[in-house]
Formats: sequence, C-alpha cells, structure tokens
Amino acid sequence: MMPAEMYFREKIPVAILGATGAVGQRFVQLLAQHPWFEIKALAASERSAGKKYGDAVRWMLPTPIPPELAALEVQPCEPTLPCSLVFSGLDARVAGDVEKAFAQAGYMVVSNCHNHRMDPTVPLLIPEVNPSHLSLLSHQTTSGKIVTDPNCSVMGLAMALKPLYDLFGLEAVHVVTLQAISGAGYPGVPSLDILDNVIPYISGEEHKIETEPLKILGSPSEPASFKISAHCTRVPVTDGHTACLSFQLKKPATADQIIEAWKTFRSEPQTLRLPMAPEYPLHYFHEEAMPQPRLHRQLGQGMSVAIGRLRPCPLLGHKCVLLSHNTIRGAAGAAILNAELLVQKGLVRW
Amino acid sequence: MMPAEMYFREKIPVAILGATGAVGQRFVQLLAQHPWFEIKALAASERSAGKKYGDAVRWMLPTPIPPELAALEVQPCEPTLPCSLVFSGLDARVAGDVEKAFAQAGYMVVSNCHNHRMDPTVPLLIPEVNPSHLSLLSHQTTSGKIVTDPNCSVMGLAMALKPLYDLFGLEAVHVVTLQAISGAGYPGVPSLDILDNVIPYISGEEHKIETEPLKILGSPSEPASFKISAHCTRVPVTDGHTACLSFQLKKPATADQIIEAWKTFRSEPQTLRLPMAPEYPLHYFHEEAMPQPRLHRQLGQGMSVAIGRLRPCPLLGHKCVLLSHNTIRGAAGAAILNAELLVQKGLVRW
Amino acid sequence: MMPAEMYFREKIPVAILGATGAVGQRFVQLLAQHPWFEIKALAASERSAGKKYGDAVRWMLPTPIPPELAALEVQPCEPTLPCSLVFSGLDARVAGDVEKAFAQAGYMVVSNCHNHRMDPTVPLLIPEVNPSHLSLLSHQTTSGKIVTDPNCSVMGLAMALKPLYDLFGLEAVHVVTLQAISGAGYPGVPSLDILDNVIPYISGEEHKIETEPLKILGSPSEPASFKISAHCTRVPVTDGHTACLSFQLKKPATADQIIEAWKTFRSEPQTLRLPMAPEYPLHYFHEEAMPQPRLHRQLGQGMSVAIGRLRPCPLLGHKCVLLSHNTIRGAAGAAILNAELLVQKGLVRW
Amino acid sequence: MMPAEMYFREKIPVAILGATGAVGQRFVQLLAQHPWFEIKALAASERSAGKKYGDAVRWMLPTPIPPELAALEVQPCEPTLPCSLVFSGLDARVAGDVEKAFAQAGYMVVSNCHNHRMDPTVPLLIPEVNPSHLSLLSHQTTSGKIVTDPNCSVMGLAMALKPLYDLFGLEAVHVVTLQAISGAGYPGVPSLDILDNVIPYISGEEHKIETEPLKILGSPSEPASFKISAHCTRVPVTDGHTACLSFQLKKPATADQIIEAWKTFRSEPQTLRLPMAPEYPLHYFHEEAMPQPRLHRQLGQGMSVAIGRLRPCPLLGHKCVLLSHNTIRGAAGAAILNAELLVQKGLVRW
Repeated sequence: MMPAEMYFREKIPVAILGATGAVGQRFVQLLAQHPWFEIKALAASERSAGKKYGDAVRWMLPTPIPPELAALEVQPCEPTLPCSLVFSGLDARVAGDVEKAFAQAGYMVVSNCHNHRMDPTVPLLIPEVNPSHLSLLSHQTTSGKIVTDPNCSVMGLAMALKPLYDLFGLEAVHVVTLQAISGAGYPGVPSLDILDNVIPYISGEEHKIETEPLKILGSPSEPASFKISAHCTRVPVTDGHTACLSFQLKKPATADQIIEAWKTFRSEPQTLRLPMAPEYPLHYFHEEAMPQPRLHRQLGQGMSVAIGRLRPCPLLGHKCVLLSHNTIRGAAGAAILNAELLVQKGLVRW
Repeated sequence: MMPAEMYFREKIPVAILGATGAVGQRFVQLLAQHPWFEIKALAASERSAGKKYGDAVRWMLPTPIPPELAALEVQPCEPTLPCSLVFSGLDARVAGDVEKAFAQAGYMVVSNCHNHRMDPTVPLLIPEVNPSHLSLLSHQTTSGKIVTDPNCSVMGLAMALKPLYDLFGLEAVHVVTLQAISGAGYPGVPSLDILDNVIPYISGEEHKIETEPLKILGSPSEPASFKISAHCTRVPVTDGHTACLSFQLKKPATADQIIEAWKTFRSEPQTLRLPMAPEYPLHYFHEEAMPQPRLHRQLGQGMSVAIGRLRPCPLLGHKCVLLSHNTIRGAAGAAILNAELLVQKGLVRW
Repeated sequence: MMPAEMYFREKIPVAILGATGAVGQRFVQLLAQHPWFEIKALAASERSAGKKYGDAVRWMLPTPIPPELAALEVQPCEPTLPCSLVFSGLDARVAGDVEKAFAQAGYMVVSNCHNHRMDPTVPLLIPEVNPSHLSLLSHQTTSGKIVTDPNCSVMGLAMALKPLYDLFGLEAVHVVTLQAISGAGYPGVPSLDILDNVIPYISGEEHKIETEPLKILGSPSEPASFKISAHCTRVPVTDGHTACLSFQLKKPATADQIIEAWKTFRSEPQTLRLPMAPEYPLHYFHEEAMPQPRLHRQLGQGMSVAIGRLRPCPLLGHKCVLLSHNTIRGAAGAAILNAELLVQKGLVRW
Repeated sequence: MMPAEMYFREKIPVAILGATGAVGQRFVQLLAQHPWFEIKALAASERSAGKKYGDAVRWMLPTPIPPELAALEVQPCEPTLPCSLVFSGLDARVAGDVEKAFAQAGYMVVSNCHNHRMDPTVPLLIPEVNPSHLSLLSHQTTSGKIVTDPNCSVMGLAMALKPLYDLFGLEAVHVVTLQAISGAGYPGVPSLDILDNVIPYISGEEHKIETEPLKILGSPSEPASFKISAHCTRVPVTDGHTACLSFQLKKPATADQIIEAWKTFRSEPQTLRLPMAPEYPLHYFHEEAMPQPRLHRQLGQGMSVAIGRLRPCPLLGHKCVLLSHNTIRGAAGAAILNAELLVQKGLVRW
C-alpha cells in the first residue's frame, strides 16, 4: 500500500513516547506495518510503565492492536530506550521537558506536541511545504535534535496555502474551523458538551493558527508576514477538521489558476516517494457540497488535504472549504512523514 | 409568560398557510396560547386538505398538538379563510403565487418565505431593527399586503449588527454559519449526510446572507452599503444556528463600547411590550465558551439573540460568536412578532 | 403550571446537597419556582464551598440560573444547614455517610442516590406506586429519616408495571434499556465513546434493574417475587431513557385491557394534587413509532412515563416500549415529588 | 488481503442490479478489486440508465469510485447484460419481478432483497451456516436461479446461534436490535428523526427476525422450531447493528463452553478459503463494554460477527451482545460470499 523506494537491510528501531494516548495509538497503528520503521519500545507515564501495552492502553481505533505490540512491556519515558529515533505523542504538560531530555541524550525526537514548535531552532516541518527548514537543526546545541509538526488545524491550512503563497503571494487569510472531537484526546470532550451542540471555543487554538503558518511558510530565518484571523469551534464529528477559508492574494489569480495550482502541487515527499506521502497532497473537489469529513477524511490514507467550493469572496477575493484528517495528516501521520524525510536526508543514525 | 399590554374584546382570528410543515407546526405551537390571536383555520396542500389536522400532520415538536387544533379540518390554501390575517409557512415553490393571491383578496399576509423578501415594496421586517420599513406597505397596490421576515441566519446577524451600525457604522462583515438541521425542514437533511459529518454548503443561503441584511439595515428606500461575505455549513445540531462573525466598523470602538451597545439595545417591541418580544433582544455572555446552541437557543423563549467571545480580529478589527433559534426567532416567532407590530400599528383590520 | 392545593403561610425552607452536580442543577431548576419549597442553602464539596453558586457550578441546563441562587454562597455538606428538609444529589462515593449524618442530626433526607435504596428500613419510594412504604420510616432509629427514589431506569419500568402487577400479576419481565448520556452525570461519558456509537454496558445498572422493582412493587416488608432480566446500553441521546420491555402476566389480559390499565392509572399524587405530580402518570401512544426521547421526554413536564407499541411477544406474551425523562422523573423530579408526599403526610417539620 | 485459493484464466464477468443505491455502491466498492469477479455492467432504474455511473450515482462511501467504473454507462435492469452472474441490490418494490425475469433468462441471481427469501425453493444462504441449502436450487424451475442472503439484523444473529444450535439445541431467543441508519438506505432516515433520538420501530423488521433464522438454521426442507421474539430500534449510528440477545438452550452449557463454541467456529468458507470469508466468523470480546459499533464493525473487513458480555439471564439462561456490519456482512459482502460459494460449487457457468 505504501511504496518504499528505499530498502534497508534491517528496519530502523523506533520508540513511541506517550504510546497509550490518542496520538500514541495512531503512531502504533501506522508504524505497525511501516516498511522502514520497527517499534522497539512503547513508553508512557508512570501509571502505565511496567504493564503490558495491551493492558495499559484503552485502545480506541477500529483496527485491533497488533498482538506483538500488545505484549510489549510499557517503559517509562526516560532516555534509555533501545533506538535513536523516538516519536512523541506526549501530553503537553510533560512534553517540553521529556523531549528536551531525549534530545540531550542524543535521540532524534520527532514530536507532535506544541511545546517546542515556535522555538527558532526547531523546524516546524511539513515535508511538502518547508523541507529547507531542516537546516535549523544545526542551530540546536544538543547532540540529539527535535523536529515538530504543526497544530492539527494548521496542517491543512499551510498545505493549501503553500502553492498560492509561492505563485501569487498572500496578503490576508481568514479561517473558521469546525474541529472533530478526536482532536481533544481522550477522555477529552464530555459528550454532554457536544451532542446536539457546537462549542465555539478551543483553548489556545486560535493563537496557534494565527502564528504557526507564518513560521512554516517563511524562510528558515524569517517568518512570512501576511495576516491571519482564526475562529475555532468544536463540532460533533469524530475525525476530520473542516475549515472555511477566505484569502487575499498579492497578485491577481483566476479560479482556474488557483485550482490548477492545488491540483498540480507535488513536493519532495512525492518525488522521494516517502512511504507515508500521499500521491496527491491536495485534492480539489468540483462537486458543490464537498469535501465532507465522513466521506473524505481517509483520502490518501488520511494524508491528503481535500479542498472544494472555491468561489469569490466579497471581502478578500477568494473563499473555499478545506478538510484534513486531524489525527493522521494532522498528528501521527505528519510526524511519521517528518521522520521519513529525516531518514532520507541522512539525519537519523541507527 | 408573555405580557400583553393591549387587550381586545375578542381575540383576532388568524389562519396558517402551510400548517403541516416544520414552520407551520411552530406557528401552531406558538399561536395556540397567544394572548391576541386565535387560530381559526389551518390550511395546507391538496394532499392534506379535508383531513383532520391531527391526522394530516407529522407532528415533530416536544409539546403535544393542542387537541382543539388537532380536530380542525385542514383547508386548502385558497383566499376564502375566515380571517383577515394569515401566517405563511408555505414551501417556497408555491409561496410566491399563493401569498400574492391572498394579498389580492385583501388579506394581511405575514410570511416566513423568501419569495417576496427582496421586492422593493415588501417590508423585510424585524420589529427591533427596521419598523419604519412598514411605510413600504403603501406602495403595494393590492388591497391586502405582504410582510416578510428574513432568512433564519440573517435574523441573528441583522439584530447583532443593528446597534453597531447605528453607533459606529459598518464597513465590512465576514460570517461563517454552523446551521441546525431543522432549518432544512422535514424530511430535509438525510441522516446519512449529517451524522458524524459537516455539509459545507446550503443551497442559496450565502446569497441571502450577503444581501438581506443590506435591505434590512438600510432606509425604506435605499439599502445599506457595507460588504458581506458568507460561508454556510450544516452541522449535526437539531435547533439553533451558530455564526462566527468578524466585522469592521467605520468609527473606532472599544470592546466595552460594543458590548454595552448590545446589552442596552432595546427597541419598539420592548417599548410596546409586544407579547412575543423578548425582554432583552441581545444577550452577551462573558464566559469563554458561550453561547452554545443546546444551552442558549431557548433564551428569551427562543426570541433573544445570544452573543459571546468579542475579541480583536487581526483582519477586520472585531470578531465574536452569535447564536439564535432558527425556527423561533428565525422563523415562526419572527413572523408572529411582525404581526403583533402590525396590529399595534393599526394595520390589521378584523 | 403546577397546581398547589395546599397553601402555607410561609414556604418550607430546604437545602440541596451536591448542588453543583448534574442532579443538583435539576433540583435548583425545579425548586426555584416551587410553590411549597424555598431553597435556603446550596451545599457541595470542599472544592466549591465558600464560592458563590454561580461561580462554583458549571451550569448545563437551557434555562438560566435564577440570579438570587447564583449569588448564594455554597455551604459544605455538614448538618448545620438552616432547614429541616434536604434534597441529596450527592455523588455515590460520599452520599452514604453524608446522608446518614444528616439523618442523625434530625434532617429529613430526600435522596436521589443509590446508597441506602436497598436498606430494609428505607422507603424506595414512588408516590404513585408504593406510598404505603412510608411506614418503613418508623423503623429508622435516627431522629431524622432517609427516603430514596429508584434508579433512573427503574422509575419508568416500575410505574408501567404497577397497574399490571395489581390487576393481572407478574411472572417475568425482560427489559433492554437505551439510556441517555445525562444519566452518567458530568463530565460522564467521553464523546469519543458515544458519538456514532453504542456502549453495551453501564456499570452496576443491570443489577439495580433486576432488584429495585421487586422492593418497590412488594409490600413494605416483603419484596415482589417475579423474575427480571435486564440488558443496559448507552446511546447518543442527551435526555430520556428508552426501554424495550417484554412481560409475562399471571392472568390472561387482552391488549385493550392492558392499555386501559395504563390510561386510567392514577394514584395518590394525582388525588392529592401534589405540585410535581403529572396529570397522567402513564401516557399510551397508539402511533406506530412512538414514544421517542426527543419528542416525548418532556411529557407532563418530564414527570409522565410514555408507553407505546404494545404487541404480542412470542416468548413472554406481551411487549412494548417505554420512555421516561431520566433526570426529571428519574432523578430530581422524583425526589421532589417524594418530598411533597412527605409534607402532605405531615412527615416534615419546619 | 483476501486470499484466493482458486485461480481462473479470466475473471468471471458480473453485473450489479440497482448499482446506484446504498447496497449497490457497496457491491461496486467490494467487487472493484475482487480476485475472481470483474464488473462488466452496472444496471439501475430508468432514471439513471444511459448516464455515466459517476454522474448517475450519489456516491456515499469514503473510498472513491474506481475511475473505470465511474466511466461505465448505466444499463437498464433488463436481462441482456453481458454476464451470467448478477448481484441484486434492487429496491424491494421492483426486486421481485426483475430478479424473476433474470432467473427466467438464465442468469444466476445473487440477491440482497427480501422478496424471494421465504420462497421454499430459494436458498436463504449464509455460507458458514447452511451451505447444504444450495440443494434447493434444483427445485427452481427456471433455467437461471435465485439465491438470497438474510436481513441485515438476522445475519449476525443466525451466525452466533449456529454453533449453539448444533451443540446444545435452542429453545427460545429474545433479541432487541439497535440498528444503524445505513440500514435504511438513502435518503432513508431523516436527520430530524434520529439526531438526539431513538426510533423504536422499523417497518417489517421484527417479523423478518422472528422467521428468517428458523429457515436458515433448519434443514433445506424443514425450518427449525425454536421461538424468537424481536424488538427493533433505530439509533444514531452510521454503520453496525448492535443486538442484545437472551437465549435458552435445550441442553445445559457453561459460559466457557459457549464461548469456546463461538471461538472455534469455522465452516466451509474458511475451509475453502473463499476470498470474502473472514478468518474468524465469530469474535468473542472478554472486555466488559465490548463490542461497540464504531470500534468493531470493520472486524474481518466487516465480515466477522463480534460477540461480548456473555452472562446469565434470569429468564432464559444466557445473555450477550452481538455486533455486525449491516452493509458488509449484512448485505453486499454477504451476497458476494454467497456468489463465491456458488462458483466454488460449480454452480456458476461463464
């Protein structure tokens, strides 16, 4: 299913930090059959350490836990794991320090947490968008390094904006998100708060959407300078973040030119045929009520961004709808793609 | 519950056109105990005419059908009904002609349909916002008259904008709606389209939101001239439309001034103590995740508009969240309030 | 709305234990306008004590907190409250001891918790079903007394069975519940567990349903002896427990006789015109797909039990569908009705 | 993913009747990559015939339409299709006659419709349960033949009962279903009827559940004779029917023996390694709140039946929970497995 153009004599040993959480489970699911990586350790909090993974985890994915991983003993999150590459799906309350400790101990830390995202020496990486930001790694003074992926709502936004930014320039972006409950982890959103309801607020989210895309679309040393305004809401959807986007370009562009820019967008992960890379990073739907989370979140195994309804915006010039899978493209899948790029660039020793 | 400052020797006889539909049912529910009006006839399509209302209707409201109305024989929608005031919740496919026929026959038609909304001689009326538009009635050449209420998403928007427009002027408005399924009537939205899903499109809705507020906020003879951009989505919520609003004022205003403008907003329906008028047309929530449809759609018996989360918008200056009950304030309740104003102004004979 | 045949010179002072919880909030809502009772104190856990109620509570009901109660300072749950009647919506982990302490201090404790339900000296009371069980109070050795109401799923079941048990006798009952999320309190069921899902298990619930009805339908000193089998499930519904019921009678009965038994069922609360008592405790629907939680949970202000679809059961003779509001008839409303009966019987001093 | 032990020089040409409907789409999805079958024609109603499939269908599955099938011109449902095997997902209003016409014209008709299910000459086939019923085909007098699969709720029930019926005998079965909305097709259940709601009735369903299992578990010439009672409800779940089952065996059996019977159950499709056959037809969960539709409906690619919570039933001896995917195991996947068995038995010519 996933093409692997590179072959290794042996798979690369990896570990997962925060393996029992919602993102950790996605790491387990997606890495279990990965052509390059092999899970050698699952690490989690004190409460879980020492138990078998199958007993420690409250598994919530529709595919079963791979039996050999269910039998693994959960390790504490300490930098003595038998590998040099770790994926972090840690809770933000502990991620900052734990990831730092692993980097200091020489590990390559591929993080899905927000703690180090805005650190100027840490790449906030989307392989299709800003692979050149890997140059920032040389500014990290630890023997190991930290690479992060963006907020789940920023992911689809930054990918959709990338070809427009390059071709036409960006002046302003207005985005309203309708986010899935899985984005809040488990137990996360109480059902009494979301059944037959909308919650028009997600703590910290609007600030991330108004800042992270500027770092991602900028150069390694200087952020982009367009304006972003974000409203974030939570809706009764299990997976898949929808966004209503209005945007103002610097140069004039027709709808056809914009759609063409999205449809033809390919980048390093596609050229390098990285295993997690979708064939089409951006998929444009011409049907009038598309994309929709239940129908399209699995596009490109959950790694493609779906776009639709491009039409004129009386205020900003253009408007459209975006959709991306928040726990695959927006979290675990993103981190794995980041790791694949690191391996391909020779930045992971093992 | 509803204060009635005017007293009549006898209640005013009224009829409901389209009485079996979703909006028609709300008319029945809200008018059943009305202090001024008494339902004398229920009219619907050929298919229902001749049956008892209780047999013809697929009743969907949580309060039971009033027994005396359940026993009424449904009439055809012809202008021979025993009253001079009719409420129309007709399907848009037939509303245009049927309402015209009633107006020609001398009836006062209080409509919830969009067919005549943008006719320059028809008031698109919100009693709190543009009661002066009743002057347009004199331009209608029929012996009876037609008055309309706005689209369910426009209602909350126009009410929230009114005090800002008057005090500070409006330059631009950007609105993204998250609309309830009851807005699509019955059977309306198939459950397979909306469970665990968002539909990022509602036919015709964005155009209405981008035009109706300009007529409402303008003078009787000239529309307002600010710009509006709308994205409309359908979400898995039964009742209550949420909107994420960004707006640009002509004059500077602090958050406190804006909130004060909303909180102190009162208008003719409050002064006149019209029965359906909420004590507070606009309610501002200071809590960070409010308003929410399941918690606040019933505010002011479903006739108040809830607002929250006023904060700076990097693009337009200000942003906030709106909520209103789409089938009460946004439909049947709005029409009844319109009728109350007409009665109070001496425009209904009986 | 609620008829009050008894009048008191002054309202009876009451307090609510566990006032910030889901059931506590319903107590506040239902007692705020009660013709007999006046809330004099709101008590909750250490965490809330000392704060204003409006600040301590995460209010989740669609009607606003009455302002005078929002301003009350929350008290600790200690038996020094300025009243002699307390309503308990405490968490089961603390309810047992706290309620006991209040009873020892002389309070009449009207509890919604399960801790003391099966104590042979504590009435497990439904005023329509077993008012004679109040005689058990004389066996309690404390100066104050404890009265409990049944589990939220048992309530509708026991009420629907009561007239059948009296007229025809009961041999066996099989019940499958489809329970609303509000039954689990707040935060309660995580949304990831229930959106687009069914949870076929509720801890402890099946045992309660298989035992409580026997105590309720028995004499004060001896439980009834028919057999009950229960399956409990949680479904994505906010309020209103549905149950699929099959039952075997001792004596033959036609469908008409059974329906007649339900329709004509009245009891002491109706005769005494207790304020919370519904006019019709049981409502039978002849329509083929009724009752439904969203449509009928508010029947009789949430205090009636809805029944429908009586038809032959190939195994047990008869089957039907039940519906009742789990947080009104099944919790706070039930306790208030219990208190009203206690007052009417002269068992509350104040 | 699907093992195919038989190899053919060329794939077997097949057609789908009712290809644009909900079941028809599942046929298209599941047959698109089938190792034995190749879709040569898509047939549907007059309204669709002549259009390209991609234009005629309102595609609702999360995987895209295979492009070569999207380009096929839809045929009318007439027996001139270029194949000898047809899958029928027709609407029940037309299925009876159309399927008969195809059988008369010599086609092997593998139907998912209920019209011919109870015809004594038509196998109501579940390959794991009653493959011997294929002997009934010789009683059909047409040159072609009709084979049917059971109702979507009967499927999981009959499979779970099969090993118990064989080992211990069955006296009585009581089943309450909580069925997914996809079982009603498209547009099917209006969202206003099911959001925040349960519908305690599904037209015709209880009768099917009380009769079909007896034909399936009986011999080709004589139905089984135990008693079944069914209650059917619709719940807000997209896919996956849950059932609460109580059953009485003829011979005593321990919980361990019953679970062992389920876990070790294998049958002809497993022995023959038919491509659609799941490795484990029945999966037993020992976790206390399992199985759940969102987590387990995809088990065995949607072809396994999940069982859990076996425990004593005070009335019938045993009770448990069942789950199966209603549009895969309960519809299109079932029919394809039937066709595979027919091919393997030499009953399909091509």
